[in-house]
Amino acid sequence: MAIGSTYKVVELVGSSSESVQQAIDGAIARAAQTIRNLDWFEVREIRGTIDGGAANWYQVKLGIGFRVDSGEDVSQD
Amino acid sequence: MAIGSTYKVVELVGSSSESVQQAIDGAIARAAQTIRNLDWFEVREIRGTIDGGAANWYQVKLGIGFRVDSGEDVSQD
Amino acid sequence: MAIGSTYKVVELVGSSSESVQQAIDGAIARAAQTIRNLDWFEVREIRGTIDGGAANWYQVKLGIGFRVDSGEDVSQD
Amino acid sequence: MAIGSTYKVVELVGSSSESVQQAIDGAIARAAQTIRNLDWFEVREIRGTIDGGAANWYQVKLGIGFRVDSGEDVSQD
Amino acid sequence: MAIGSTYKVVELVGSSSESVQQAIDGAIARAAQTIRNLDWFEVREIRGTIDGGAANWYQVKLGIGFRVDSGEDVSQD
Amino acid sequence: MAIGSTYKVVELVGSSSESVQQAIDGAIARAAQTIRNLDWFEVREIRGTIDGGAANWYQVKLGIGFRVDSGEDVSQD
Amino acid sequence: MAIGSTYKVVELVGSSSESVQQAIDGAIARAAQTIRNLDWFEVREIRGTIDGGAANWYQVKLGIGFRVDSGEDVSQD
Amino acid sequence: MAIGSTYKVVELVGSSSESVQQAIDGAIARAAQTIRNLDWFEVREIRGTIDGGAANWYQVKLGIGFRVDSGEDVSQD
Amino acid sequence: MAIGSTYKVVELVGSSSESVQQAIDGAIARAAQTIRNLDWFEVREIRGTIDGGAANWYQVKLGIGFRVDSGEDVSQD
Amino acid sequence: MAIGSTYKVVELVGSSSESVQQAIDGAIARAAQTIRNLDWFEVREIRGTIDGGAANWYQVKLGIGFRVDSGEDVSQD
Amino acid sequence: MAIGSTYKVVELVGSSSESVQQAIDGAIARAAQTIRNLDWFEVREIRGTIDGGAANWYQVKLGIGFRVDSGEDVSQD
Amino acid sequence: MAIGSTYKVVELVGSSSESVQQAIDGAIARAAQTIRNLDWFEVREIRGTIDGGAANWYQVKLGIGFRVDSGEDVSQD
Repeated sequence: MAIGSTYKVVELVGSSSESVQQAIDGAIARAAQTIRNLDWFEVREIRGTIDGGAANWYQVKLGIGFRVDSGEDVSQD
Repeated sequence: MAIGSTYKVVELVGSSSESVQQAIDGAIARAAQTIRNLDWFEVREIRGTIDGGAANWYQVKLGIGFRVDSGEDVSQD
Repeated sequence: MAIGSTYKVVELVGSSSESVQQAIDGAIARAAQTIRNLDWFEVREIRGTIDGGAANWYQVKLGIGFRVDSGEDVSQD
Repeated sequence: MAIGSTYKVVELVGSSSESVQQAIDGAIARAAQTIRNLDWFEVREIRGTIDGGAANWYQVKLGIGFRVDSGEDVSQD
Repeated sequence: MAIGSTYKVVELVGSSSESVQQAIDGAIARAAQTIRNLDWFEVREIRGTIDGGAANWYQVKLGIGFRVDSGEDVSQD
Repeated sequence: MAIGSTYKVVELVGSSSESVQQAIDGAIARAAQTIRNLDWFEVREIRGTIDGGAANWYQVKLGIGFRVDSGEDVSQD
Repeated sequence: MAIGSTYKVVELVGSSSESVQQAIDGAIARAAQTIRNLDWFEVREIRGTIDGGAANWYQVKLGIGFRVDSGEDVSQD
Repeated sequence: MAIGSTYKVVELVGSSSESVQQAIDGAIARAAQTIRNLDWFEVREIRGTIDGGAANWYQVKLGIGFRVDSGEDVSQD
Repeated sequence: MAIGSTYKVVELVGSSSESVQQAIDGAIARAAQTIRNLDWFEVREIRGTIDGGAANWYQVKLGIGFRVDSGEDVSQD
Repeated sequence: MAIGSTYKVVELVGSSSESVQQAIDGAIARAAQTIRNLDWFEVREIRGTIDGGAANWYQVKLGIGFRVDSGEDVSQD
Repeated sequence: MAIGSTYKVVELVGSSSESVQQAIDGAIARAAQTIRNLDWFEVREIRGTIDGGAANWYQVKLGIGFRVDSGEDVSQD
Repeated sequence: MAIGSTYKVVELVGSSSESVQQAIDGAIARAAQTIRNLDWFEVREIRGTIDGGAANWYQVKLGIGFRVDSGEDVSQD
C-alpha cells in the first residue's frame, strides 16, 4: 500500500469559430504543446460570443489533468 | 467612472434532429431574428428526446445575453 | 435532419395562501392567460412568508417553457 | 385561502467601471425605467473584464422580480 | 385525475474516439439494444481521456429515461 | 466494528395528473411492486407538462433507496 | 442610509405521515411555539422514509428566518 | 495527534439601506454583541428588496463561525 | 395521519490534527455533550490548514440533526 | 474513429460502524460480488446516523461505474 | 472557420482589511504584475476572518482568465 | 485599511492505494516539495479506480492555497 502519482489540473478555455467540439480539441492541443503526461479533461462550461446573428466564438472551459513527475515543480504547470 | 450598459439574458431552448451543435446554433439564429445587439450565450442544459432507439430531438437550453439600448423597454426582450 | 422549434423559458413566481401545489398551479394559469403554446414547467425554488405562526404565502419559482412560433418576436414572451 | 399575486423574474446584467455595488444599482435603475412594481433582486453572478491591469467593467447578473398585475401580459416583461 | 406512468432513469457513460456527439449517440444506441420505451436523455457530465496530445476518448455521462410498463420489474432496468 | 448493509438507489420519475404529492406516492408504490426492503426516498426534481393552460402531468424524479440482501444481485434493482 | 435588522436562519426538518405540505407546515408551527418574529422559510430538501410499500414519513428540511430584536442574544435562536 | 476545537456556524442575514458591504459588516457586528470567539464568515447569498426604483434593503446571508469553548453548550449559539 | 417530530440541524466544524475521520467524530462527540436526541449527520465540507508541508488541522463541516422534544425551545439548539 | 465501450453507473450506499473509509470499501466489495468489469467510483454523499453520542453508522453514497459488454442487458445492472 | 485563442484561468484569493471590493481589485492588480493579456475575472467565493467583533480580512476567490500567446508555455501561468 | 496578501490556489489530485486520507496527505506533501507558504486545502472530489473487486487507487482532488510573496511571479505556481 503506497502513495501513488500526483496529478495537476489546469483550467483552460479553448475557442473556435466552428464548433463546441473544435473548441475542446483546440484547448487540449494547446495544452499538449508544453505539458507532458496529459491524462484527462473535464468540460466545466460551454459559452460563446455572438456577432452578426450567429455564434462567432464557441468557448469551452476545461479542466485538464496531467501527471506530475517526481522531479518536477508543481508550481510549473 | 460610470455605470455602463445593461444587458438582458433570455432563456431559450433550441432543438435539432441532427446534433447538439445545431440545436445551439438554431436557438441563436432564432433569437437573432427579433433581438438586436446579441452579445453572448451560455449553455445551461443539454438533453433530448428518444424515439426508435435514437435521439430524435437534441434540446439545448441557452441563456442568451444582449445589450439593452437606452431607449428600449427591458420588459420587451 | 433539420433544426426544430425554439422554446422560450420565462421565470415566474406563483403564490398561494393555501399550499405549494396551488402556488404552482396559479403561476401556470397566470402564464396561460397571455402566452400560447405553453409546454412544460420546472420547479426552481419553494419558499414563503410567515405571519402569525404559520405560512401566509407559499411562493414557488417556476421556469415555464413554451414554443415560439416562427412569426413571433422572442423578445415578446 | 386563495391564489395570490404572480411575480416575474427577468435576468439582467448591470455593468460599472467603478464597483460591484454600482453595477447592481445600475441594473435595478435600468429595470425601473420600464418595469413597474419591482419587488426584489437576487445576485446570481459577479464577474467582469480586465484591461490595463485592472477591472474596467464589473458585471453583476441579477434576477429582478416584479409583480405582474392582473391585466398585464406576462409575455411583456 | 389519476396516477400516470412511472419512468426509470439509468445512468450510462458513452464513449467515442471521434466526438462528444458520437459518445451521446452511442450510449443511447446501446441502451436501445435492451431497453424498450426509451423516452428522453439528460447530459450530466462531459469528460474524456487524453493520449498523444489529443483526446482519445470522449466520455459523456447521460441519464436515460424510459417508461416502465405495468407488468415489468423496475429492478430490471 | 463491522461493515453494515449495502443500499441501492434507483432513480424513478412518478407522474400524476392531480398533484406533486400524488406523483411522489405513485413512484414509491410502483417501486414497491417489485423491490423489497424499500427504505427511503429523496426528491431530486419537480417538473411537468402543460396542456390547455394547466399542468396535465406533474413529474417528480425520486431517488429511492432499498437494502440489498446478501444473496441478491445488485445488478438486479 | 443605515444598517437594518439582522435576521437569523435556523434549519428545521418537519415530518408528517400525510404529505409534504403538512411536513412544511408542521415545522413552521413548531418554530412558532418558541421563536418570535418569524419572517420567511426556504425549502432545502424533500425526502422521507418508506415502510410497507409507501412513504410513512415525509421529511422536509427548511431554513426558517426570523428577525432578531436588538436586545436579544443571537446565540439564542 | 489530537482532536482540536469545535466551531459552530450560525446563519445570519444582515441588511443595509446603503450597500452590500454594510450589510455584511452589520451582520458580523450584530453577532459580535452576544457571541464570543467569532472566527470567520462565508457569504452565502446576496439579494434585496426594491422600492421606488432602487434597492431599499441589501440583504446578505452569511454563515458565521465561532469557536465553542469546552464548557459551553453548543445548543447555545 | 399526523404531524411527526421536528428535528433541528446545527452546523458544526470538527477539527483534528490526525485525520478527516477523527474530525467528524470529534464534532459529533462535542455535540453530544450538550444536545440530547442526536439523530444523524451530513458532511458538508472537508478542508484544513497546512503547516510545515503537511496538514496540521483537518476541518470537517457537518450538519448534525436531532429531535426536538415537544417541551423544548427550538431557539435553544 | 469509432464508438467505444458503454459504461453503466449504479448508485450504492455503503455503511460501516467503523469509518467512512470502510463504508466506501464495503459498497465496492458488495458491488463486486455480482457485477463484472467494475471500473471506477465517485463519492456523492457522506452522512450517517448517531446513537449514544457517537456515529453508529457511517453511510457513503457512491456512483460505481462498470463496462457493459456487448452481449449484456444494460437493464441488468 | 478556425481554432481561436486559448485562455488560461488561474485561481487567486485577494484580501483586504477594508472591503470586498478592494479584495477583488487587489487580486487583479497582483495578477497584472506578472501576467500579460489579462482578460476577465469571475468571483467564486466571498469570505473572511473576524477579529475583535469585526471582519479584519475580506477574502475573495477569483478565477482570472488571460490569453495564452502562441509561443508561451501554458504550464507557466 | 490596506490590501493584504494574495493567495493562489492550485488544483491537485492525490492518489493512494490505501485510503482517502492518504491520498489527501500525499497531494499536500507533493505540493510542499516545490511550493512555499502553503496555507490551506479544500477537498473538491473523491473518486477512484476499481480493480479485482476493490478500489486500487483512491483519488482526491484538492484545491491547495498558498501565499504569493510580493516578488514572486504568480504565473509560477
